[in-house]
Amino acid sequence: MTAGRPSDGTRPSGMRCDVAVIGAGTAGLVAERTARKAGAQTLLIDDGFAGTTCATVGCMPSKLLIAAANAAKSVRKAATFGIGALEPAIDGHAVMARLREERDGFVAATLRSIDEIPTGICVRQRARFTGRTTLALGDGTTVSAKAIVIATGARPSVPKVFEPLGDLVLTNESVFELPSLPESIAVVGAGPLGLELAQAFVRLDVDTEVFEQSDHVASLRDPDVAKEVKRVIGEELIMHFGVKLKATHDGDLVRLAWSGASSGEKSFARLLVAAGRSPELHDLNLVATGIGVDDRGIPTVDEATLQCGDAPIFLAGDADGTRPVLHEASFEGFIAGRNAAAYPDVRPIKRAAPISIMFTDPPLAVVGAPRSDEALTGLASYADQGRAKVDACNAGLVRIYADRDCGRLTGATLFGPAMDHIAHLIAWSIERGETAGSLLTMPFYHPTFEEGLKPALRQICKAVNASELDHVDEAAPPGA
Amino acid sequence: MTAGRPSDGTRPSGMRCDVAVIGAGTAGLVAERTARKAGAQTLLIDDGFAGTTCATVGCMPSKLLIAAANAAKSVRKAATFGIGALEPAIDGHAVMARLREERDGFVAATLRSIDEIPTGICVRQRARFTGRTTLALGDGTTVSAKAIVIATGARPSVPKVFEPLGDLVLTNESVFELPSLPESIAVVGAGPLGLELAQAFVRLDVDTEVFEQSDHVASLRDPDVAKEVKRVIGEELIMHFGVKLKATHDGDLVRLAWSGASSGEKSFARLLVAAGRSPELHDLNLVATGIGVDDRGIPTVDEATLQCGDAPIFLAGDADGTRPVLHEASFEGFIAGRNAAAYPDVRPIKRAAPISIMFTDPPLAVVGAPRSDEALTGLASYADQGRAKVDACNAGLVRIYADRDCGRLTGATLFGPAMDHIAHLIAWSIERGETAGSLLTMPFYHPTFEEGLKPALRQICKAVNASELDHVDEAAPPGA
Repeated sequence: MTAGRPSDGTRPSGMRCDVAVIGAGTAGLVAERTARKAGAQTLLIDDGFAGTTCATVGCMPSKLLIAAANAAKSVRKAATFGIGALEPAIDGHAVMARLREERDGFVAATLRSIDEIPTGICVRQRARFTGRTTLALGDGTTVSAKAIVIATGARPSVPKVFEPLGDLVLTNESVFELPSLPESIAVVGAGPLGLELAQAFVRLDVDTEVFEQSDHVASLRDPDVAKEVKRVIGEELIMHFGVKLKATHDGDLVRLAWSGASSGEKSFARLLVAAGRSPELHDLNLVATGIGVDDRGIPTVDEATLQCGDAPIFLAGDADGTRPVLHEASFEGFIAGRNAAAYPDVRPIKRAAPISIMFTDPPLAVVGAPRSDEALTGLASYADQGRAKVDACNAGLVRIYADRDCGRLTGATLFGPAMDHIAHLIAWSIERGETAGSLLTMPFYHPTFEEGLKPALRQICKAVNASELDHVDEAAPPGA
Repeated sequence: MTAGRPSDGTRPSGMRCDVAVIGAGTAGLVAERTARKAGAQTLLIDDGFAGTTCATVGCMPSKLLIAAANAAKSVRKAATFGIGALEPAIDGHAVMARLREERDGFVAATLRSIDEIPTGICVRQRARFTGRTTLALGDGTTVSAKAIVIATGARPSVPKVFEPLGDLVLTNESVFELPSLPESIAVVGAGPLGLELAQAFVRLDVDTEVFEQSDHVASLRDPDVAKEVKRVIGEELIMHFGVKLKATHDGDLVRLAWSGASSGEKSFARLLVAAGRSPELHDLNLVATGIGVDDRGIPTVDEATLQCGDAPIFLAGDADGTRPVLHEASFEGFIAGRNAAAYPDVRPIKRAAPISIMFTDPPLAVVGAPRSDEALTGLASYADQGRAKVDACNAGLVRIYADRDCGRLTGATLFGPAMDHIAHLIAWSIERGETAGSLLTMPFYHPTFEEGLKPALRQICKAVNASELDHVDEAAPPGA
């Protein structure tokens, strides 16, 4: 048995520890490590130890599918630059084989980090609460802890209406196991995950259509940017908004009928549900803890401490139903692990400006606080932006939000080339209290996509009469 | 005659103004506009008004050639992702036609900005000094100004040894006029311009070799990053370092013989000289001004005021022989225009952290102060970086420099995917006095290339015992 590998062997029927962590995903792994480094005796309880959501069924395999899709797109687009007129020859088996090979490499790296956990800490069992600080494991063992971290993650929500379709329904947990690309696919949900995968499939020659119950694309609140997202993504991909679905079997296919803002019927080889993920909390018997839960059954938690009420219970990662992205799960694991080890000396820990990125082409990033009606805004289009014209990707729209007093940045909705990178610039600037004026004194290299932010920043500067405007030349450089 | 268009018509034989600007490139245009907005009566003197270096023969056409080259590379690389095995069909005429069409659009935008200058300011003449504040124009007119801005730009330096080759020798001023791609090309100089164009040509199926007199690649001071640049760029492109050249005619070709670290002989269709650019100052009769010049004939100038000694003469843009990149030229135009208008109230203006980017694939960026032996350094490789593996571009090396006291960032040499974007993050962080520790508390999205900086930042943190290390989880996220 490798040191640290989870054991199924015999154990004492009662275990004690300082901090028990339920769930060995990103948040749980960080929480356990943080608590252990703080001197706590820890247990890490998971029934699988199979790798993180990110590595197995989330960030990494989706980015791998996108990498293949963008390669196919690049082949088609090459003619724009004078490179013949080519149709990509897409080998679905090869696409999925590379995806899984690389994905498995990332999973293996996660498993190696589990191997490095000292012996006796990993416990391969299910756990349920029997009290505020006590757990019963699947094999009957009891665990008594001074504090407990819940880091059980989330699972895709599949509406009941699709359940009769059986294996024809895919989620992010099954789609990457397809041996090859399907002939056609209906994607349910126009959120970030749905659009990432739908754009990838259509670029890989899969007949793809997106169906979304609401009118919202990518959960965007900014109507102008939303319109541009629908326009640009819609040039490649058929999307139906404001529709309700009925699904039946059609031989080996899914027969989908939609109605509402539009109506129609079509058969698809598969149906991919990307309609959100729900925290995995139902098997925990949370009622035994006495902590408060909201109407979805999610414990009410202090965002700064991750403590559930006044209990020695902490909630981290996708299990809390907010910010379901890796770097937040990781940081929440840190907060929860730190506070669980220090309990009752629980301290608030400052959260960084939120970032959410949809890795479509072009990418969409939402940074900072949600749009408020009081905010000043600056808008910039990439339709005529210099570097974007050079690279024949001149589309997109960004809106930057700032407070009315001095133009201090509060958030941004960014849709356009390189916005996955530019999101970091904006988030870091929000963290540091930069204003639109102070950013205009920063170096912007030419010709870059970063320059395309300047018109939006100037609009905010003018609205607050920022003094920095006297210190920068307002004219765009040629071609910017 | 359009308002503001330069006039060749009759003018009074003596003109007076507050600020005369010589040269209507990026720096000159900004200097004139800045001085005029400050209330000065201005003249903008140029013998061509043909557009800026950036738009006509610099940034924009080179990025356009690179865009085509990267499109060809994407086609070849698609097989990695399961997208057939394709050879791009490169249409040299189409590549160059698109380049010139887009380039001409950028030039037209520059010319429109000249059209917007009020009537009577643009003077289409050559100018030479007859005193500290007096100029003689080509048509005999004299100009008397309170202050003068020199913004005459730079021209490619062509070593005398190549002069007999005539039209077979290209520079950045002629290469973009080629009707189609050459069969083969020898590129002289392994600086940023030479490598950008050489990598572009080789990706466009041009038989390309690079010849560099020194051992230095891209003028890099960091030996480890330089080695990685040579290795990665060298996988596609033959580069000869430490060689001297002899060139003769071989029918319609150039026969090149090289010796030194290696030796050989080969014929090329063309020879592209990318061995630096020299300030265009020789026709100005600077001796009449009495200002000091260095051994290259470049006036000694205060970098913070751009004033030449105590004279009412200011030097901006590529004419000063430093930082020959657009955003610096533009900012220098602002400083020179501001100070020329305010003369004698000349003020130092803070310069931003320098950035220099070579838009190869992957890009190379040098940011901040040059490497010093006293600096702490942190190193990070992209060979095994998560997102880089996803996108099959896992190569590169970055080194971040920081001061020994607290790990405050002073500079970086960045070679790897998206480093053109990451250069902005680092430059802006240097501007704000961020430390390696403070940056580790910033949000890094996953999976991104930005995460790849973290190992370098952690090394610096450890060297200074940064307290932030207690507040961040040190383990990389799975796959990062």
